[in-house]
Amino acid sequence: MPARPLELDDNRILPTEPAVRAIAREIFAAIRDLPLISMHGHVEASVLADDAPFGDPAQLLVVPDHYVTRMFVSQGTRLEDLGVPRRDGGPVETDGREIWRRFCAGWRLFRGTPSRFWLEQELHDVFGVQVHPSVETADAIYDRIAECIAQPQFRPRALFDRFGLEILATTDAPSSSLEAHAAIAASDWDGRVVPTFRPDALVHLRQPRWKQDVEELGEVAGTDVATYAGYLQALEQRREHFRRHGALATDHGHICADTTPLERADAERIYAAALAGTVDPVQADAFAAHMLFEMARMSRDDGLVMQIHPGVLRNHDPAVHERFGPDKGFDIPLPVDFVRGLRPMLSAFGTDPGFRCVVFTIDEDSYSRELAPLAGVYPAMRLGVPWWFLDSPLAMRRFREAVTETAGFYNTAGFVDDTRAFASIPARHELARRVDSGYLAQLVANGQLGKEEAIETAVDLTATIPRQAYAPRAT
Amino acid sequence: MPARPLELDDNRILPTEPAVRAIAREIFAAIRDLPLISMHGHVEASVLADDAPFGDPAQLLVVPDHYVTRMFVSQGTRLEDLGVPRRDGGPVETDGREIWRRFCAGWRLFRGTPSRFWLEQELHDVFGVQVHPSVETADAIYDRIAECIAQPQFRPRALFDRFGLEILATTDAPSSSLEAHAAIAASDWDGRVVPTFRPDALVHLRQPRWKQDVEELGEVAGTDVATYAGYLQALEQRREHFRRHGALATDHGHICADTTPLERADAERIYAAALAGTVDPVQADAFAAHMLFEMARMSRDDGLVMQIHPGVLRNHDPAVHERFGPDKGFDIPLPVDFVRGLRPMLSAFGTDPGFRCVVFTIDEDSYSRELAPLAGVYPAMRLGVPWWFLDSPLAMRRFREAVTETAGFYNTAGFVDDTRAFASIPARHELARRVDSGYLAQLVANGQLGKEEAIETAVDLTATIPRQAYAPRAT
Amino acid sequence: MPARPLELDDNRILPTEPAVRAIAREIFAAIRDLPLISMHGHVEASVLADDAPFGDPAQLLVVPDHYVTRMFVSQGTRLEDLGVPRRDGGPVETDGREIWRRFCAGWRLFRGTPSRFWLEQELHDVFGVQVHPSVETADAIYDRIAECIAQPQFRPRALFDRFGLEILATTDAPSSSLEAHAAIAASDWDGRVVPTFRPDALVHLRQPRWKQDVEELGEVAGTDVATYAGYLQALEQRREHFRRHGALATDHGHICADTTPLERADAERIYAAALAGTVDPVQADAFAAHMLFEMARMSRDDGLVMQIHPGVLRNHDPAVHERFGPDKGFDIPLPVDFVRGLRPMLSAFGTDPGFRCVVFTIDEDSYSRELAPLAGVYPAMRLGVPWWFLDSPLAMRRFREAVTETAGFYNTAGFVDDTRAFASIPARHELARRVDSGYLAQLVANGQLGKEEAIETAVDLTATIPRQAYAPRAT
Repeated sequence: MPARPLELDDNRILPTEPAVRAIAREIFAAIRDLPLISMHGHVEASVLADDAPFGDPAQLLVVPDHYVTRMFVSQGTRLEDLGVPRRDGGPVETDGREIWRRFCAGWRLFRGTPSRFWLEQELHDVFGVQVHPSVETADAIYDRIAECIAQPQFRPRALFDRFGLEILATTDAPSSSLEAHAAIAASDWDGRVVPTFRPDALVHLRQPRWKQDVEELGEVAGTDVATYAGYLQALEQRREHFRRHGALATDHGHICADTTPLERADAERIYAAALAGTVDPVQADAFAAHMLFEMARMSRDDGLVMQIHPGVLRNHDPAVHERFGPDKGFDIPLPVDFVRGLRPMLSAFGTDPGFRCVVFTIDEDSYSRELAPLAGVYPAMRLGVPWWFLDSPLAMRRFREAVTETAGFYNTAGFVDDTRAFASIPARHELARRVDSGYLAQLVANGQLGKEEAIETAVDLTATIPRQAYAPRAT
Repeated sequence: MPARPLELDDNRILPTEPAVRAIAREIFAAIRDLPLISMHGHVEASVLADDAPFGDPAQLLVVPDHYVTRMFVSQGTRLEDLGVPRRDGGPVETDGREIWRRFCAGWRLFRGTPSRFWLEQELHDVFGVQVHPSVETADAIYDRIAECIAQPQFRPRALFDRFGLEILATTDAPSSSLEAHAAIAASDWDGRVVPTFRPDALVHLRQPRWKQDVEELGEVAGTDVATYAGYLQALEQRREHFRRHGALATDHGHICADTTPLERADAERIYAAALAGTVDPVQADAFAAHMLFEMARMSRDDGLVMQIHPGVLRNHDPAVHERFGPDKGFDIPLPVDFVRGLRPMLSAFGTDPGFRCVVFTIDEDSYSRELAPLAGVYPAMRLGVPWWFLDSPLAMRRFREAVTETAGFYNTAGFVDDTRAFASIPARHELARRVDSGYLAQLVANGQLGKEEAIETAVDLTATIPRQAYAPRAT
Repeated sequence: MPARPLELDDNRILPTEPAVRAIAREIFAAIRDLPLISMHGHVEASVLADDAPFGDPAQLLVVPDHYVTRMFVSQGTRLEDLGVPRRDGGPVETDGREIWRRFCAGWRLFRGTPSRFWLEQELHDVFGVQVHPSVETADAIYDRIAECIAQPQFRPRALFDRFGLEILATTDAPSSSLEAHAAIAASDWDGRVVPTFRPDALVHLRQPRWKQDVEELGEVAGTDVATYAGYLQALEQRREHFRRHGALATDHGHICADTTPLERADAERIYAAALAGTVDPVQADAFAAHMLFEMARMSRDDGLVMQIHPGVLRNHDPAVHERFGPDKGFDIPLPVDFVRGLRPMLSAFGTDPGFRCVVFTIDEDSYSRELAPLAGVYPAMRLGVPWWFLDSPLAMRRFREAVTETAGFYNTAGFVDDTRAFASIPARHELARRVDSGYLAQLVANGQLGKEEAIETAVDLTATIPRQAYAPRAT
């Protein structure tokens, strides 16, 4: 079988109807080259602090990308054979070329998925690959990518600049020293890389490492965390540390959206029980909800924007978790009750000009029923755009279709790529821009919007809105 | 910035694909000018009884429209600054022109929303405005509208006639004397304005004013409401009063869809507890469900069509409710269990030829899963069309797409505008007609329906079906 | 009114946009005539064992099709008047022609429904009818069909061959002797008709006939079912009996998706209580969940593919159930918690190469939120395609749109017609093929997929994937 040429259709994802496509092209042209604003993601700051060359092609594009590995797992491949490290250090495939061949042999599995879109664009635009992956082309593509990443212009900072990143937000534990961020700031490179404060491990009292993590928090904060008051104070101090290193936001991943505050005495009692190792699941859930409320209060006070990402049952298969750890594709969405869950927080802070929260979901049902009506009235709330399983062509389109009629455009926040795959960032933003251009073009073709308005809206969605959504609040 | 001309695209909302649009235009032409049948709304009968000129442009189009004010609130505007009256009589903006300027300055917030569609059409078709609202055009538009509403042909009855309203149903408390309806009937104007019986305040036992409302009910009905039997009798009498004044339907807004009846003794006991002020929330919920069942029984007996609108958590922010009262945009949809909730009622009356209910939702998830299968088998049930947040171009299209394949067209009820914004009624109906035309055109273009059938169906959806759905039942 | 010609548009259901339609036609041409693989349905094997002529047109197309009868019921027709037998043997319409006339008079009710698509194609392609049903054409169509079914080429085996059925799976009680399947195998006709093991009646302990059914199971298995161990053994033996008669799969209809296993002692205790007639609803639910887990274990051991069809509240109106029995259109979907429900089963067997399950839903909400993420990672799981209310043009399209981006194509299973209406099988498969062709064409037109890939994918969806999904597992 001859190699199938890999060419990127310049109209991909845009509407197929000729008249609508023409409008969409005009809109897309106005935003295509705007800088990338990456306000939520999982690239490590050390990657940009060290600026070391990336590893081999499999280590860059396959092994760490759980979108890719889970698709192979779903078809019977073992994670070991894709080079995913085992927790017990047991043997896994270490030959990058062998992993790459397996990946190329399964290329058809990605038909119709956003991974295919991202990977195609990465291969083509970043690495200049001109054939589709296949058994026959695997080695040549591997060599091509390997050759690229050995060159200075493929180091992280060079790519950051080439990608046009205006800002990149990382995600960091509260105890992090943020030394990588400091190193970047102190360097002669002018890329903007800011931390994000993610305290999940500290507010979920039954996390196995909770006590250890809290003690570490106390140490770095120089605070006695033996009491609840000390714990709060330590968190406030670390938030301040993050702010001094440029942080604009916090991030919170909870299984539900409950924000019910506890009485002070109850919070103290539960905190003490956790330290004593006697906390029960009901108490732990109540404390997590309470801390979401407390984090909102702190956001109101210090101006960090609060991102909430609820509704994921992590590590659905305990055996896989035991063997390989978290983030292996076994995280499954759950329905979330945003209406009752967020009510305490929004009643307390939802109309406070000092507070800003961005609420995400991977339960599409809540878009039109819950999130658009909430974001369409509470001034503090912005509706996070599609995330995780949903940042795909049709799901992003469904998002706009489900929420715009109720919440408009200006109560959403900008696209977030949420990725650890650094090289995929431009492709992800471009996909979102193409989808938004198509949606806006439809409104123009429908007679609902003028073309100039649509172009202005597209620029707002791409640049103005995310800049404003994450701008520091008055404190 | 020069004023942007406001022109209405005659093809707006119709499908954009040329061949499908051509079919849609033919279908739309057949229904565009059919009379408006407005079977559910919130215009006050007194507006048409008094036939006084409308207030200023802001009072007409901004202040009372919570779709409009909530969008400004979501972007940080205070309700006071939009002239929304405070409960405590505290100061709010009273200058209509100032409110109107604020509205025009935020025109972009409505991009992609149905409010934009309705307002554009109102401004253009009703008031002859020819430029888009903006900071620059605000005063001129204000003057234009003010000039219009000073003229006799812009009084309510004149507009009613000009709009082609065949019937307008209002929504009224059971204790209402319906004197405005009587005055209209007695006048020489032949517009048909009928009341709708809405007993919510009387069946929710923990409503703060419940006892007062029940006492008022007893007075107007001339019935002793000290007992549950007297309460039921009073309700039956008021229903009869409404029927004599032309009512065709009742309306019921409950937080869930539970219709489980109580044993008579339990109902009596709970009713007595309510009078004594000792009813608890569980009892109150059980009583509300029971009364939904009782209302169905009464409908079966007196032939009034029963409209059910469940699933809204009202007044999500208590502080806003406290300050401004209900209906301020803080009403948020909830999931509803229609399958188990409606089962008692449908098992009892769902195949009874004397009973008709129309069930609405703002939880889109229930369309294909619950409501279409139920409406597709129970002869007493019709599926209410999209309502509130959902009477928008894409949501109305999703409704047809989600329900028609299971329930067909003939188990739905006709469009309801559900509005207090009198001047927006024609635009709302036109939007629904455009959406239905587009959906039917797609079926024709798909080879699923002949064009003549599609036109016949469009006429049925617009006129035949609502007339039949609300026709008095055999009693 | 002159008879309206019944012509099938060769492009029906394909995308309407000319360029996309052209691609869809090419894809559809490649799969249109592939053999029909019918892995889940409700045709009785005896129909093909006996090969007797079908009854009259009403008995063939109206009376047994609850899609058709429920639509008439929803508009006020009594089931008696459609010839549906009463349980008490009371009088119902017996004149096939009269029933047929009622059906034709209500033809408009099916506008926009898949029943209309299926019936049109059956009438036209199978019976050569060339006019639409109507009051005027009813008798002529009746005569035409009656004439056909009297001829040998309209007997079941002849139609089976004409339809191009590669395999037809029936659904059978565990106690079934499968003598009809044996008779077919022993005959000189080479059609492949295989049984499917459906043990629902035996695992729901509060089914009125449960004890009787279990005793019958014990008898045919030659096993003492007085103990739980004997009961399990009897089930295992019958599965083996099914396998020897060609069965490839089991089928399980539960109200929820719970698969939590019980401790052995608890299962034994509950089983004993059921035999003693003292089991309570909570125990019965726990036992049903446990047995789903046990059935997965047996599937892992014997290689039968496990089909799960949860989430239907059967017989919503008890009076209709009492009068006419089950399957009368009063079965209504419910939300299902797949994430927590399937977790025990998937944790135990989800990565076991010996296990395969196909999970179906009629709750569309779970597609993108739950089922695609689960099928997109567990190797044992395939996602069943739209079923029951959802095997319609738009719902099948929504399925592909909701799941492909997360699960790809290769984690789905092939189309299942799930029908008792033998003559509708080709139309149902053709509809699915048209929808898939249209979806794939959109990906090509969008620049997401090459045309050759799309054609290959279409062939895989139609033939390769269902063959592989139901292939016997290694045991």
